[in-house]
Formats: sequence, C-alpha cells, structure tokens
Amino acid sequence: MDISVEMVKELRARTGAGVLDCRKALEETQGDMDAAVGLLRERGLAAAAKRADREARDGRIECYVHPGNRIATMVELNCETDFVARTESFIHLAHELAMQIAAMKPLYVSKEDVPESVLEEERAKYRQEFGKDKPPHVVERIVEGKLAKFYEEVCLLEQFSIRDGERRVKDLVADVAAQVGENVVVRRFVRYELGA
Amino acid sequence: MDISVEMVKELRARTGAGVLDCRKALEETQGDMDAAVGLLRERGLAAAAKRADREARDGRIECYVHPGNRIATMVELNCETDFVARTESFIHLAHELAMQIAAMKPLYVSKEDVPESVLEEERAKYRQEFGKDKPPHVVERIVEGKLAKFYEEVCLLEQFSIRDGERRVKDLVADVAAQVGENVVVRRFVRYELGA
Repeated sequence: MDISVEMVKELRARTGAGVLDCRKALEETQGDMDAAVGLLRERGLAAAAKRADREARDGRIECYVHPGNRIATMVELNCETDFVARTESFIHLAHELAMQIAAMKPLYVSKEDVPESVLEEERAKYRQEFGKDKPPHVVERIVEGKLAKFYEEVCLLEQFSIRDGERRVKDLVADVAAQVGENVVVRRFVRYELGA
Repeated sequence: MDISVEMVKELRARTGAGVLDCRKALEETQGDMDAAVGLLRERGLAAAAKRADREARDGRIECYVHPGNRIATMVELNCETDFVARTESFIHLAHELAMQIAAMKPLYVSKEDVPESVLEEERAKYRQEFGKDKPPHVVERIVEGKLAKFYEEVCLLEQFSIRDGERRVKDLVADVAAQVGENVVVRRFVRYELGA
C-alpha cells in the first residue's frame, strides 16, 4: 500500500511521533490510521515506561472555576522540564483534567491512592449483596468486577474522559507523555463545592 | 459640630451602615471620620456576633493562579444568601483572600484549627530556647508572646493583610460582614506550589 505524505502528517499531528515511526506504523497497519495510532501509542507507552524513573518536578497548576463560583477545582500536573510545561498540549491536558474533576468528582488520583480500609468496606458491601446463594469463587469474581467499576468511579486516572467517552483519563495523560517525550504525572488535585 | 451630608455619605460608603447610625457615630466622634468608622465597626461586630448562630451556607469559591501557573490557591468564603454572595464587596474579599493565601502561605484558617500537638511542639521549642536562666513565670510570658507571633504567621485570619499591613485578615472579614449584614465565614482554603 502507498503511504502518502498527508497520512504521515496526520499521524504525526495525532501522536507527536517522528516521521519514520509514523510511516512504519502506517505500513504495518496497511494505512489504517486508527490502528497506527494504537500501535504508536503502545510504543509511546513503552517509551514512557522507560522514562518512569526520571523525576517529574516541573509542570503546571491549573484551576477551573465553574460559572457561578460554586464549584472549583485545582490540579497539579507534573513533567520534567519547564519547556514541556509551556507546551500547548501539556497546558491543554491540565485544563482538561481540571474540568474532568469538576464534572466527575473523583476522590483519588489513581488506584494506588485508595486506602485499603475503603477497599475492604467496598468488598464487604458487595459480598453481602451478592454472596447469599452463590459459590464463593463466583462471588469473588463479582466482587472484583464491582471493584473495577468502583475504581472507574472514584479514581481520576481510571475515569472515562468527559470529552472522549471511549478513552480513560490515563490514556489522555499517556498520549501527552508520548507526544512530549517526558514523564507526565498527575500529582494531586482538590475539588471544592459550596457547602459540600 | 455640624455633620454634613457628605460626611454621612462617606461614612456610609466606608461601612455600609445606615444613615442614622452614621450621623450618630459622627456626632459622637465630633466629625472624626476614622474614629466613627471604628465606632461603627465595634457596633457592626456586635451585630455580627448576634448573627453568629445563623448558618452561612451560601457563598463563593475563588481561585487565584499566580502568573506562570506555579502557585495557585482556592478558598471557600461563606455567607448566608446568594444575594450577598453576588455583591461586589463579598467577591472582592474572596479575591483578596485568595491572593493573601498565595503570598503569605497560611496553614490554618483560624487559631482554633491549629492542632494541640503542634502548639505543644511550639511551646516546647520556645521553652528550650528561652527557659535556661529565667524564672518560670517569665518564660511562660515569653512563650505566650512567641505563640501569638506563631498564630500571626500560620493562621490566615490572624495574618496582617498584604494590602493593608495595619489590619488583620479577620478585620477585613468583619468589615464585609458588617457591611452586608450577614455572617461571613472563611470555611477552608488550599494552596498548591509546584513540587512543594
């Protein structure tokens, strides 16, 4: 299949990957743009994983105030250099996170931040609800499924994006990390709601 | 002394008190504007104290992002009605608080919010520093003085205003409470500094 310059350009715009990587990905997927994005993302993620021990100490603090000033959020998004902190895609991500938090009320950044005591409470709740007349191994499978749903609800990174309901917040973060070539880490956030 | 309409007007603008109260205050202080403000404030504060059992559940959440997005603050300021929440002086106060927090890094809203363990640590520190060769009652007086300084440093309401270094933040809050005739309460705040 013939890969046009326009296709390579489009893929670059969508992923931030290099020209050669884009051409290669498109050849491998026979011109399927979405598949090529997926392929580069996988490789981008692999690159991000290698970066994971580099420290992300720079970044940006972003606020979102909902019209009427009754809900507001603040989020700290880290990267490694102030150069990246000033890029459009990084700033855009920070803004998107602040809006996501306002709308979807997460309680924790990631799964790892949910205290064990909270998880135990959730598990006990599900066991009581579903454990009456089912064999234990079935119950445990249900419990794990429910817990995954719980994570999706309360963990920012596990939530589905309010802009793109097909993708999770962690995927948006990984996209930007791949694009800018640095670790990108959501460090903390806070959400105030009047009287809540 | 003759109290002019202009003087009454000015005092009203500065305090938000009624015409008669302003005239009376100016007569009592023989036209001394600052003394009259003080007088009305005292009375305004008395009124605010009577209001203290009415619930402040409305209000406004305000953010301040310092240029460069490396420091940001968020504060919830409560009043009793959404009408007051929309007044200029209330909005102005919320904004001023957010900037104060950015600049002066308070850790607590009020004295009452400082944990006893922190106070004990501070006291122990001062006693060790000043208690070597002084009689206990002198040491304790020094300790209380140091503690007052500590409150001024770490409690938002006890800090001196960055706009008016002669007045404390709690005085600015009391001014607005007197002016709008409702309870005005700083409920909570948060300050993020990049990497801090």
